[in-house]
Amino acid sequence: MLRIPYDEMVGEFARVLLKNGFSRERAELSARLFADASRDGVYSHGANRFARHIEDIAGGRIVVDAEPELVETVGVVERWDGRQGPGNLNAWFCMNRAIEAARRSGIGCVAIRNTNHWLRPGNFGLQAADAGCIGICWSNTINNLPAWGAKEARLGNNPVVIAVPRDEGHVLLDMAMSQFSFGKLAVYARSGEPLPVVGGYDEEGRPTRDAAAIARSRRAMPIGYWKGAGLSMMLDLIAALLSGGNAIQQIAALGAECMLSQVFIAIDVDRIVGHENRNRVVHEILEYAAGSEPAGPDERVYFPGERTLLTRAENLAKGVPVDPEIWEGILRL
Amino acid sequence: MLRIPYDEMVGEFARVLLKNGFSRERAELSARLFADASRDGVYSHGANRFARHIEDIAGGRIVVDAEPELVETVGVVERWDGRQGPGNLNAWFCMNRAIEAARRSGIGCVAIRNTNHWLRPGNFGLQAADAGCIGICWSNTINNLPAWGAKEARLGNNPVVIAVPRDEGHVLLDMAMSQFSFGKLAVYARSGEPLPVVGGYDEEGRPTRDAAAIARSRRAMPIGYWKGAGLSMMLDLIAALLSGGNAIQQIAALGAECMLSQVFIAIDVDRIVGHENRNRVVHEILEYAAGSEPAGPDERVYFPGERTLLTRAENLAKGVPVDPEIWEGILRL
Repeated sequence: MLRIPYDEMVGEFARVLLKNGFSRERAELSARLFADASRDGVYSHGANRFARHIEDIAGGRIVVDAEPELVETVGVVERWDGRQGPGNLNAWFCMNRAIEAARRSGIGCVAIRNTNHWLRPGNFGLQAADAGCIGICWSNTINNLPAWGAKEARLGNNPVVIAVPRDEGHVLLDMAMSQFSFGKLAVYARSGEPLPVVGGYDEEGRPTRDAAAIARSRRAMPIGYWKGAGLSMMLDLIAALLSGGNAIQQIAALGAECMLSQVFIAIDVDRIVGHENRNRVVHEILEYAAGSEPAGPDERVYFPGERTLLTRAENLAKGVPVDPEIWEGILRL
Repeated sequence: MLRIPYDEMVGEFARVLLKNGFSRERAELSARLFADASRDGVYSHGANRFARHIEDIAGGRIVVDAEPELVETVGVVERWDGRQGPGNLNAWFCMNRAIEAARRSGIGCVAIRNTNHWLRPGNFGLQAADAGCIGICWSNTINNLPAWGAKEARLGNNPVVIAVPRDEGHVLLDMAMSQFSFGKLAVYARSGEPLPVVGGYDEEGRPTRDAAAIARSRRAMPIGYWKGAGLSMMLDLIAALLSGGNAIQQIAALGAECMLSQVFIAIDVDRIVGHENRNRVVHEILEYAAGSEPAGPDERVYFPGERTLLTRAENLAKGVPVDPEIWEGILRL
């Protein structure tokens, strides 16, 4: 693994984005969002996804200079059309709108249709938390998760993010509806190691910890079995309804994960609770859980996002890890 | 099992509540909420819990005539003090306030502190959906679920509800953070049948499908393992912050599941999307999932809340099932 200084990584991404038709401001924001993903250990949606993003722009699947257009405002709920612009910039824009609405009204809710993959979901939770807001957001996806009782994937592996601000580093839950992402399954399949828990079905329909078998069957296990499958459907319902955009069956018909629907909610918790009070309440809840008797001698309790903070500190100190071949590829773009 | 006509059940509950100090209006609402739980198959929080509710009132743990008091309004976010009133009436009140805010502003958010167990969570999702709103609500609880990596229970098995209106019967996700409720574990433990999937740990800390062993260890499994544990903490953080009320460690210190914190969000989807359009979008998403190739010959896909609708129809037609001993006890109250 190479380790590239964070600022150098941002600069390299920005250079390529500028060359590919982004304005300076948008190139710098997108570059930072890509670098933040790798900085925080989400390599799959950072440097590892960057070249594909450029391909998607070249192929016209992402419209590089498209900015969201306001469709309608209903009270503090806004509906935007993403016009197939870059998903990370569209998502950033929407969470900003939600934060601005939350500044005025305590809470803001923004839905967007016709947007693209937002890449690392957690970025937009951190964005809200940086603004002293609770952030909640989710995206629908293409059909890639079976409903409970189904063989065929007609639900989405929707990512959902919940962030709560904390002065020493935000609390961040960034999870999708399957127990393991297909990326993680691929890592296990290559290693030959069994998954730590059941992660899907094999081709005979038996629950299994064999990642390669799950990759073949394409039947990943929803978190909490029937519960996660149900949650996935609720998230798609709300995203499609509020945005007026595509639901899963429409994205499936497109045959590519684009023209997505997303929801962004911000709650101005620092205004509601007060900054000091907020940090104290968060601290007390985290301390209480951290003080639990551990399940085993080598175990301890992490709060959501705690490992991310540890990874971030290491990667900022030592440089952000990237596969040499991937980095060479980016340098050549 | 006895089967009691729904209206007779409501009348009987109302009679007892009136006798125990409820105003007529509040007695009738609470009676209906209890009966609705049993009508929809949630017997544990319907008739089966009614006598305990009366005991809690007699014991002063629930203040029968306490109504919520407004603490603060920040934009469209309201903070209320539940003053230890009946949890189901407080929750109904809060969801109503959220719906009223959503009528004005598209979305409403109400947090309440110092409230009691709201009994059947799904009631308040259905309440929002009946009003043409998306409803999202959750409660914190006493410490009854271990954090990931912990032996000791310092998270809550928070119930969370998401409801989307549908003319032919609402879509309703009503789930808690553990894979199985302690009530469900008790049913399996009595039957001796293994759980359908791993539901917690035995006393040696091994994952198990033995419900009796989990009941002994008190270590239930969070949905999605580490993911549900993380989600539980996020829900407690947001509920305690927005309400200004007790977080889990404070409820644990009380030693009883009271003085809880809850959040209610309503989104006026029918105003935003239009009624017909809403029903069409919901219908299409449900149809798509229902059309999945089934996993096996005896399997089919249900949408969240679909089985509830089937149970409701049967119970309204044949009478609401109740254990004869429990019903005799209620008649004597």
